[in-house]
Amino acid sequence: MYSFRNDYSEGAHPSILESLVKTNMEQTIGYGEDHYSEEAKLLIKKHIDREDVAVHFLVGGTQTNLTAISAFLRPHEAAIAAHSGHIAVHETGAIEATGHKVITRVTENGKLTVSHIESVLKEHTDEHMVKPKLVYISDSTEVGTIYYKEELKSISNYCKANGLLLFIDGARLGSALMAEDNDVTLADLAEVADAFYIGGTKNGALMGEALVIVNESLKEDFRYHIKQKGGLLAKGRVISLGFIELFKDNLFFEIAKHANEMAKLLAKGFEEVGYKTLTASTTNQIFPILPNEVLAQLEKQFDFSVWEVVDENHTAIRLVTSWATPKEAVEAFCKALREYV
Amino acid sequence: MYSFRNDYSEGAHPSILESLVKTNMEQTIGYGEDHYSEEAKLLIKKHIDREDVAVHFLVGGTQTNLTAISAFLRPHEAAIAAHSGHIAVHETGAIEATGHKVITRVTENGKLTVSHIESVLKEHTDEHMVKPKLVYISDSTEVGTIYYKEELKSISNYCKANGLLLFIDGARLGSALMAEDNDVTLADLAEVADAFYIGGTKNGALMGEALVIVNESLKEDFRYHIKQKGGLLAKGRVISLGFIELFKDNLFFEIAKHANEMAKLLAKGFEEVGYKTLTASTTNQIFPILPNEVLAQLEKQFDFSVWEVVDENHTAIRLVTSWATPKEAVEAFCKALREYV
Amino acid sequence: MYSFRNDYSEGAHPSILESLVKTNMEQTIGYGEDHYSEEAKLLIKKHIDREDVAVHFLVGGTQTNLTAISAFLRPHEAAIAAHSGHIAVHETGAIEATGHKVITRVTENGKLTVSHIESVLKEHTDEHMVKPKLVYISDSTEVGTIYYKEELKSISNYCKANGLLLFIDGARLGSALMAEDNDVTLADLAEVADAFYIGGTKNGALMGEALVIVNESLKEDFRYHIKQKGGLLAKGRVISLGFIELFKDNLFFEIAKHANEMAKLLAKGFEEVGYKTLTASTTNQIFPILPNEVLAQLEKQFDFSVWEVVDENHTAIRLVTSWATPKEAVEAFCKALREYV
Amino acid sequence: MYSFRNDYSEGAHPSILESLVKTNMEQTIGYGEDHYSEEAKLLIKKHIDREDVAVHFLVGGTQTNLTAISAFLRPHEAAIAAHSGHIAVHETGAIEATGHKVITRVTENGKLTVSHIESVLKEHTDEHMVKPKLVYISDSTEVGTIYYKEELKSISNYCKANGLLLFIDGARLGSALMAEDNDVTLADLAEVADAFYIGGTKNGALMGEALVIVNESLKEDFRYHIKQKGGLLAKGRVISLGFIELFKDNLFFEIAKHANEMAKLLAKGFEEVGYKTLTASTTNQIFPILPNEVLAQLEKQFDFSVWEVVDENHTAIRLVTSWATPKEAVEAFCKALREYV
Repeated sequence: MYSFRNDYSEGAHPSILESLVKTNMEQTIGYGEDHYSEEAKLLIKKHIDREDVAVHFLVGGTQTNLTAISAFLRPHEAAIAAHSGHIAVHETGAIEATGHKVITRVTENGKLTVSHIESVLKEHTDEHMVKPKLVYISDSTEVGTIYYKEELKSISNYCKANGLLLFIDGARLGSALMAEDNDVTLADLAEVADAFYIGGTKNGALMGEALVIVNESLKEDFRYHIKQKGGLLAKGRVISLGFIELFKDNLFFEIAKHANEMAKLLAKGFEEVGYKTLTASTTNQIFPILPNEVLAQLEKQFDFSVWEVVDENHTAIRLVTSWATPKEAVEAFCKALREYV
Repeated sequence: MYSFRNDYSEGAHPSILESLVKTNMEQTIGYGEDHYSEEAKLLIKKHIDREDVAVHFLVGGTQTNLTAISAFLRPHEAAIAAHSGHIAVHETGAIEATGHKVITRVTENGKLTVSHIESVLKEHTDEHMVKPKLVYISDSTEVGTIYYKEELKSISNYCKANGLLLFIDGARLGSALMAEDNDVTLADLAEVADAFYIGGTKNGALMGEALVIVNESLKEDFRYHIKQKGGLLAKGRVISLGFIELFKDNLFFEIAKHANEMAKLLAKGFEEVGYKTLTASTTNQIFPILPNEVLAQLEKQFDFSVWEVVDENHTAIRLVTSWATPKEAVEAFCKALREYV
Repeated sequence: MYSFRNDYSEGAHPSILESLVKTNMEQTIGYGEDHYSEEAKLLIKKHIDREDVAVHFLVGGTQTNLTAISAFLRPHEAAIAAHSGHIAVHETGAIEATGHKVITRVTENGKLTVSHIESVLKEHTDEHMVKPKLVYISDSTEVGTIYYKEELKSISNYCKANGLLLFIDGARLGSALMAEDNDVTLADLAEVADAFYIGGTKNGALMGEALVIVNESLKEDFRYHIKQKGGLLAKGRVISLGFIELFKDNLFFEIAKHANEMAKLLAKGFEEVGYKTLTASTTNQIFPILPNEVLAQLEKQFDFSVWEVVDENHTAIRLVTSWATPKEAVEAFCKALREYV
Repeated sequence: MYSFRNDYSEGAHPSILESLVKTNMEQTIGYGEDHYSEEAKLLIKKHIDREDVAVHFLVGGTQTNLTAISAFLRPHEAAIAAHSGHIAVHETGAIEATGHKVITRVTENGKLTVSHIESVLKEHTDEHMVKPKLVYISDSTEVGTIYYKEELKSISNYCKANGLLLFIDGARLGSALMAEDNDVTLADLAEVADAFYIGGTKNGALMGEALVIVNESLKEDFRYHIKQKGGLLAKGRVISLGFIELFKDNLFFEIAKHANEMAKLLAKGFEEVGYKTLTASTTNQIFPILPNEVLAQLEKQFDFSVWEVVDENHTAIRLVTSWATPKEAVEAFCKALREYV
């Protein structure tokens, strides 16, 4: 049964495994100080077109978020996130476990705006409350939407004017950057953000995320934090070889584009049968709303997540595509959909 | 230049990479709930000969130690460790970062004894001090020594009688169990310990450790802790396929034995030229003491760690062997040694 | 200028200072193990009519909340609170600083209901989210309302049925218990709650709160937590003498009643001029809504907090009365109010 | 039975209670922003002869240590302390509970030296270990000794040269500054330390410590930390009136001098009968070594702490004097001693 449940169902892009196999018996130094890690960092810097950023590889998204945010904040400082933000909902309180409150705002499409952030600052007026210090946004968001350049600039300017840090969770950054309505580049991210990460796990890597620290004052001693939080892998190559493959040419972007195209094909299928979607996604996650009978039929043939009850007769589901999604699977799904309507 | 610097210089045992390649395009469910993770757990339980233990896979040693210890302890409780214990020295305060003191005792050979533990309990008498609650030992230890069955039983009995938990760090457990003077089995560990882990990273796996929780009261909700601390991999197979390969037959033991044999050959080389070692290791780490001139020569040809200045003219070094160490490299080292003496 | 800003503007009920003076040169043992602390605990147990509870004295409300909640929860567990709850808003992230998320629900009158709690449990379904474990309510609430016996019983039953702990913040418990519509006793609280505290700071004590732990499983080692969090006073008498005075007869209740009566007089004053209040308070905090011109006049003569902008022309203020509020001040305020209307 | 058990057996210096009584019904603003707190801060600044320091009042020593140290350090940084240091031994892991390791060095007389600190820095070489950042010393120390100006300067210079912060725990600072061999002033402390505190609890105050932050970079947002850790008292006067009394003239110094004199009289008593002391104390704690039979007799008549078994027949005890110790009690003790010898 084909699964549209997520973008980490398969292992890794084959070229990454090949690379692991090919270099396997080479001895390298431990803990991310090997030459492959160096090479991967250089490639990422080149793609960002900035030599002054610091790049670190971490094992996964939660690890990256908790390590970065706890390293960046002092004890009384808090993060601001969308109510649907990954750190707010789906990381088992990882940020709070490092001592910091996550202040949330309900958004319509998973996107935080300046006015959300402003409302947080207005509410937090003195030392009886936490001090909001870091703005956390995800691009693409948890509901498949993306941030446009103007939006990022507005947030960034507001942050700079108000002494806030901007941190971008890029677990699905590839898909965001390859969305057809996207106008943002990696270089832009380095302009607007104090730090951001480039997600590997959900875009073809075996595992791992590349954290990019732009703000000079946040760079010092960062490897201490990775080690303390348990994220410093003994064998750096496990992550870095993946990023080399993804960024030595443009594999990272190409496979993200493929994932988006597959999602678009799926979305078209729903459009053709007149179904709406919950959010205006142009990335690799779509959230169509189905009559429950149709859902019941599709479930027998395909694997995916039930997202949210919409009304008595309708349910939103989540379909996720990836670098590995074959066009045939998408077409089979669309065909089945047409049959069950 | 051949490196005896550590046992994680290479990638993974080739059979593990083969397995990753072979299963790569199979879709599995995320976060360690896939059938490979289940299979790996069953194999480990079979090797321990206990079905009632809980097995979890984590990305590395520090992650395992901090996740387990913080899950097992209440806020005022502390761990007891050898002064040389990994959690005490080489994890950047990871345990303290979760709120717990690590109380240490200086040992002669890296091994904690009942009398060390007893002295800690005697010192900690009331609520102005932390409450010692968990005994942490490493087997093999950070200086290559191992615990014998009687020693483990004594510690275990003392712990049980005094309401202490016993946790065994098995980052190099394979090497310990395959030491020629070893009399302990995996099943024995489940008898004496409340929890222990079987190290993969340092014994042929691409990465990952298998935490075995024996004590029923420590099992509840453990996956929450793994997720909160950032250690729940999206792609369970990255670790579990390794443990399947290591435990479907006896690869785990065979390659550990090889590592020990290579270390023994090295040790013999030092013995033959009349050099002493710092510790009585029978595992894959040895600590020979060299005249500084000899050290200077060997450094030109081989890579290894300088461990400790012994006196004005002598230095202890650390040589580590692994599943991947070729006999030729060992022989070349011994030959060079004989030349330089 | 008379202040209705809060109920801790003055020092302490005079009888408490007398008691401090009288016993000053008596030598007692330190850290709350003195006979005055013992006596105060016995008096509180007598008033609760339960000998099996544990009583501890802590320096203030935030200290009590953070010490108790962090002692009661495991790392992955979270507290549930009203959006207006003190731990959620006004303790600078003290609970998060001990590692725990505070999950909030918006309420109409500061009171959490079973359906709020139920909605939290429904949302938190697996190990990717925190595990809700403790329900925090304040009685009286931060907006002056109180819980009725049936409400507490419902919450308590729901908690018991769902493995949740119920913790009651009683910073203004005296005022709640003396509200004219109250039907709850200290003994009732011990029936419904796993732990609660009796606030001294805001009801006549120089400082200090009396934490009552009812649930047997939460009692063990509690003094360790007080010490670790910095709340174990060297001189136990500073708090315990206050609780002796408050509970040796019924001073605690009498002065709370006085505070409520003064608040009622103020409320009547607003009622007479036809002003509404923001919340249905029957305790010592009231929140009348004033035309801005009237507010501007009153501010010149009295000190109080501006609470919330209601509309362009109206503002809600907070008036707090206490054991120390003289009837004359209340009458002067009401007179001024009538003049400015 | 007269107690030499500690210096917080009695309540407060009578003038402090008088002040509390006298000002009791005056209304002041909450949380340490009242005019008494301001006045007390000014007096302390005057005594230090520095207007640029920040002064904060906290409830007790552990609270002060944990709030300051956790505010000053980033997550991967650690404190260095004497093995006998209060934060290392007697605060139930309060520093670790905020996430930081306390690295200790065994000292002969409770005093940390540059060479101790140097040895710590030499050991901590990379990101696999915590980063030593703050040197914690107590003056007077936990064994009654004091630091001389040259010693403080050496430590301070070393700290400055190596990017370390110097924090001085002054729980018994009054006694240190009044020791007959002391050559240090409050102004000197502000020269050498980044922050230090002036202990009230153990020198006549009802409770409370005055934290003095000298280093500009450590001052920002400090009240947030006090509030978050539960140390911001609603009624600032409870502590500030004490410091006003202690510092409006020289009461703080006079009563500390009295305590020292009483300790010296006791010490003389032991000298006269030929007994030695465990440490070279010139402050208000002395540690005489007694034959066990004499100890057994004295215990019947006086209360004090047994400190340490010295040998089969001898035990060291701790005698503590205070502002409240009457000369008669000391004389009675010495008389009894002479009788039992």
